[in-house]
Amino acid sequence: MNTFGQKFRVSIFGESHGQGIGVVMDGVPAGITLSVQDFTEDILRRKSGAKGTTPRIEDDKPEILSGIFGGKTTGAPLAILFRNHNTKSSDYEIFKEMPRPGHADFVAGVKWHNFNDPRGGGHFSGRLTLPLVAAGVVAKKITDEFVITAKLVELGGETDREKWPEMIDEAVREGDSWGGIVECSAECVAQGLGEPFFDSAESLLSHAVFSIPGVRGIEFGDGFAAARMKGSEHNDPLVSETGETGKNGAGGVNGGLTNGNPIVFRVAFKPTSSIRKAQQTYDFSTGSMGCIEIPGRHDVCFALRTPVVVEAVTAIVLADLSLRSSGDTVK
Amino acid sequence: MNTFGQKFRVSIFGESHGQGIGVVMDGVPAGITLSVQDFTEDILRRKSGAKGTTPRIEDDKPEILSGIFGGKTTGAPLAILFRNHNTKSSDYEIFKEMPRPGHADFVAGVKWHNFNDPRGGGHFSGRLTLPLVAAGVVAKKITDEFVITAKLVELGGETDREKWPEMIDEAVREGDSWGGIVECSAECVAQGLGEPFFDSAESLLSHAVFSIPGVRGIEFGDGFAAARMKGSEHNDPLVSETGETGKNGAGGVNGGLTNGNPIVFRVAFKPTSSIRKAQQTYDFSTGSMGCIEIPGRHDVCFALRTPVVVEAVTAIVLADLSLRSSGDTVK
Amino acid sequence: MNTFGQKFRVSIFGESHGQGIGVVMDGVPAGITLSVQDFTEDILRRKSGAKGTTPRIEDDKPEILSGIFGGKTTGAPLAILFRNHNTKSSDYEIFKEMPRPGHADFVAGVKWHNFNDPRGGGHFSGRLTLPLVAAGVVAKKITDEFVITAKLVELGGETDREKWPEMIDEAVREGDSWGGIVECSAECVAQGLGEPFFDSAESLLSHAVFSIPGVRGIEFGDGFAAARMKGSEHNDPLVSETGETGKNGAGGVNGGLTNGNPIVFRVAFKPTSSIRKAQQTYDFSTGSMGCIEIPGRHDVCFALRTPVVVEAVTAIVLADLSLRSSGDTVK
Amino acid sequence: MNTFGQKFRVSIFGESHGQGIGVVMDGVPAGITLSVQDFTEDILRRKSGAKGTTPRIEDDKPEILSGIFGGKTTGAPLAILFRNHNTKSSDYEIFKEMPRPGHADFVAGVKWHNFNDPRGGGHFSGRLTLPLVAAGVVAKKITDEFVITAKLVELGGETDREKWPEMIDEAVREGDSWGGIVECSAECVAQGLGEPFFDSAESLLSHAVFSIPGVRGIEFGDGFAAARMKGSEHNDPLVSETGETGKNGAGGVNGGLTNGNPIVFRVAFKPTSSIRKAQQTYDFSTGSMGCIEIPGRHDVCFALRTPVVVEAVTAIVLADLSLRSSGDTVK
Repeated sequence: MNTFGQKFRVSIFGESHGQGIGVVMDGVPAGITLSVQDFTEDILRRKSGAKGTTPRIEDDKPEILSGIFGGKTTGAPLAILFRNHNTKSSDYEIFKEMPRPGHADFVAGVKWHNFNDPRGGGHFSGRLTLPLVAAGVVAKKITDEFVITAKLVELGGETDREKWPEMIDEAVREGDSWGGIVECSAECVAQGLGEPFFDSAESLLSHAVFSIPGVRGIEFGDGFAAARMKGSEHNDPLVSETGETGKNGAGGVNGGLTNGNPIVFRVAFKPTSSIRKAQQTYDFSTGSMGCIEIPGRHDVCFALRTPVVVEAVTAIVLADLSLRSSGDTVK
Repeated sequence: MNTFGQKFRVSIFGESHGQGIGVVMDGVPAGITLSVQDFTEDILRRKSGAKGTTPRIEDDKPEILSGIFGGKTTGAPLAILFRNHNTKSSDYEIFKEMPRPGHADFVAGVKWHNFNDPRGGGHFSGRLTLPLVAAGVVAKKITDEFVITAKLVELGGETDREKWPEMIDEAVREGDSWGGIVECSAECVAQGLGEPFFDSAESLLSHAVFSIPGVRGIEFGDGFAAARMKGSEHNDPLVSETGETGKNGAGGVNGGLTNGNPIVFRVAFKPTSSIRKAQQTYDFSTGSMGCIEIPGRHDVCFALRTPVVVEAVTAIVLADLSLRSSGDTVK
Repeated sequence: MNTFGQKFRVSIFGESHGQGIGVVMDGVPAGITLSVQDFTEDILRRKSGAKGTTPRIEDDKPEILSGIFGGKTTGAPLAILFRNHNTKSSDYEIFKEMPRPGHADFVAGVKWHNFNDPRGGGHFSGRLTLPLVAAGVVAKKITDEFVITAKLVELGGETDREKWPEMIDEAVREGDSWGGIVECSAECVAQGLGEPFFDSAESLLSHAVFSIPGVRGIEFGDGFAAARMKGSEHNDPLVSETGETGKNGAGGVNGGLTNGNPIVFRVAFKPTSSIRKAQQTYDFSTGSMGCIEIPGRHDVCFALRTPVVVEAVTAIVLADLSLRSSGDTVK
Repeated sequence: MNTFGQKFRVSIFGESHGQGIGVVMDGVPAGITLSVQDFTEDILRRKSGAKGTTPRIEDDKPEILSGIFGGKTTGAPLAILFRNHNTKSSDYEIFKEMPRPGHADFVAGVKWHNFNDPRGGGHFSGRLTLPLVAAGVVAKKITDEFVITAKLVELGGETDREKWPEMIDEAVREGDSWGGIVECSAECVAQGLGEPFFDSAESLLSHAVFSIPGVRGIEFGDGFAAARMKGSEHNDPLVSETGETGKNGAGGVNGGLTNGNPIVFRVAFKPTSSIRKAQQTYDFSTGSMGCIEIPGRHDVCFALRTPVVVEAVTAIVLADLSLRSSGDTVK
């Protein structure tokens, strides 16, 4: 549902074009210094406005509703609200009749008998990643010795960043979009995080990552390439008494437990589904295929905005696992 | 931890070389016909013995301890026990000093201060997939209208099955192992399964899949290839009023909800970590690198045995989501 | 923590003197008609202002932040915010040094190393029952065929309501307070609600009831009197094929499952801890006992305001159990 | 459902007359010394055989299936099985037609469409308290500095223990039964245990206590008497810097948090429902009231056997809260 985590628990709410969106974090340790300013950097990283991103501009100012006293967390739930301002809802009414390819329009209508809020994708909107980013800021403070960094490493299959601007221009001209791949690394992570059998570190990270809209795949360390290797190639010897391995082919996790090497994984994002270019879809009003053009304001490559979101969910998972790990062994 | 699922809840226990391993299933609807024979086929599919698999043979006979009356499930927890018989534990003592590459030996020792059971990997053993398969059998009965099928589609990068036997022979000769890729498809699945924001269908499937030992990656539909596409290529129009799409590039899920098309995903399994061939690892007794040869009985390609495990966790997730989906909309 | 329920899940946040308090409800079925007006009646019942209740007046106007579209619930989380306005925080600073008898001042300081918000009891304030009441309104809509009614049946041990006004006057004069007993009945409840072994109907009801500040006890049906009976006195025969029993001594629950008879339980509320009358407490500034007088604005008998809160948590539990009960038996 | 606890998680399974009953404990810290002998004392305390208890004798020998290595817990799930031997199932067939007063026969049949196991109460049997006691033994080891003691303080309303033997004789002669009240005290408990808002210490304790079959009520400290007091009577001053209070009227909990004083609560148990004496009940075969005599082997006062069960669930809750309390405040 809309809550994730056991000990550090994140609940999100809101819709793209409703009153606002927000997050309630439970289990935040008391005594963490926190102010509205702490959110600025990550929110800016996620924010639209750069080349290739949607021109919808929201101020994205967090209001901390609870859980803070004297500039520090109190141990009580931390609730943060972002008001929606810049909403243009009239664009979306046609999509009940002509569901947009790649969107949840049709299937959300099936699940909730068309009671779901269709405006701007409603609760399915990428805008919901904003409260995730806010939760990530707090999670990073909980695990402040961990160094979590994500970046886009491929855009439309191209790894050379210098070629990206012209690829984006091309897509803008064509009214099309691009997918991309984000790589995330978490360094200086404590050893032994993960709760086998089911809550392995990879299980929780992939669970959280696949909640980000538009993810198609995830791989750790050698990833899919490992499936094409021999054991003697993929195996990765310990090379020191602190558990360092030779090449980190496991991506920082053995047996579902963090092994102290950097956690490394890559996430495949699909191209933005909303494109200006005309597309076919089923027209429920005519009972035959029809042609749809999606106006609105969209990212050419929303993957450009997702590294900070991937960092956020990574921090959320590691904060939770870190808090859960106490009590593993009797004192 | 060792429990997965909300409404259909699976808990596993046991170690490779302990008294036995087992599973407790909670939330099984009453009235399902179930007998020991129902487990035979899937257990045989997982069982070792074929070319490329370990010569350790267990009878793998399930004992149903509770939850059945008159040949039908009762609504009370269904507990199933598999006794361990064929255990040779002496092989494993050296691995405390010389942790095996690719195994959890070292990190489990860190997490549990060496109180963990090291024999045969203990609770981290692939043997724990046996109770998963048993739970999968019950899950398949809960969702008996769904058709869930997994198969190995690549071995060591090779898709031509005719070449696999000689590749396996080669690895046996070399004392090496191979990775592989399993593809799973779930057809005839109800629409609207998935509980956004966090419990999207992909989130839960990947969560469960990454609990299987040895998984390195997962991708849905077009997967990583989608990240290299344009939106106009990846987008997938609805082509009928029942929600069929043109090419199922989304792999059966939109916005985290099953869309009625086959759920299709691929799972990358690493090569078996335990190989006969000599390997380097850190030797804690000498404080320097040492050479290790792993005797024991191992799979040359354990991925050969995993399709039924992937099916099992898929069925477990879909059974849970299916039971959870009631009450989505007011009557 | 601050979330309750499995399928209908209620999360609360906020502090007595912070920005506001609120509730996020997850799992609300789509299609329920809901407006701000629906909350008015129950909020008024809880509201202070009557004889024996605190003169602090808040407007208690709910703002629905999400989860509504076109006047109906959408299936997405329903978030409701109440702003705090009428806060006078200066009163509370002394209580760090001289913890008030009966309050969490001391122990919350221990738990959160004095980072907790002490103003007006912070997150421990009875004000947090306001979002509970709001959640109860929605829960009652989910279970609208159930008839849930709670009322104060004893005040200071007196069952004759006509004597209560003078008892209250007396306590006001003395700067003292009274406890009370609330009786709750839920009629027309479906049979078979409850999820043994641990989530029996009584277990969940008592769990929720004891989260209301100031509860000292709960008993179902014959309650403590049953412990003084013989089996032949307490036993309660079925008298009809629909499961009606003779005297409902079990209070509507057998074996943890609702049996279709009215669920009846009584809740003991302690007297308001904050009294004007001088009291002894330990003075941490002097290291000896000291005398404290608690100014502020307090209820003489807060139990007067709790019947609607007891109804709310009852509705929350029954809504959750009701949604959870589908899938008990195979179709 | 059949799992309780968040960090120390107890799952039970089994039926009175099936293969056996058992418990799986997850989250047990590694390194706790544990052997089969550790269970003997508490199991004997629960065991039948004394005056007033059922003559059904089971050997109640625990088999530890997993989670132990070298005499210590490993951090992996601890599964314990008790085989059923002494079962006489033929007695119970008539109760489908003539549901026993006070039992779940009728309502379990409604919930699970008569697929539930009716033999000896099936999963509803008091026999399921045996795995609870086993879990309690482990929980007591986790919290070994806490001193948890429960005893029967009233039998049939009589507090003078010297009169109990003749009361029991009388009930045996009459084919009747008695209820009783158990008082539990937990001393030397850490301060600050409890996770408001919903997981207050009282909430979790009452939740667990009401899962024990036959409980009708629970009260903490002054309990129901508090509801008849004035604030100046009930309030309980701190009298030392360590948080000691004058009379412990709150029963060791303030604001849902343990305050370091003994946790004291009383539990009301109904009289045994199964009595030899003839009783009325609805006869579904005739469609009218009928007379039932319950043969079988029953406790005259099962409350005599419950103190150790109350201790067990108390230990389970406190072990869980204790493990959960780490991370309350940032280091």
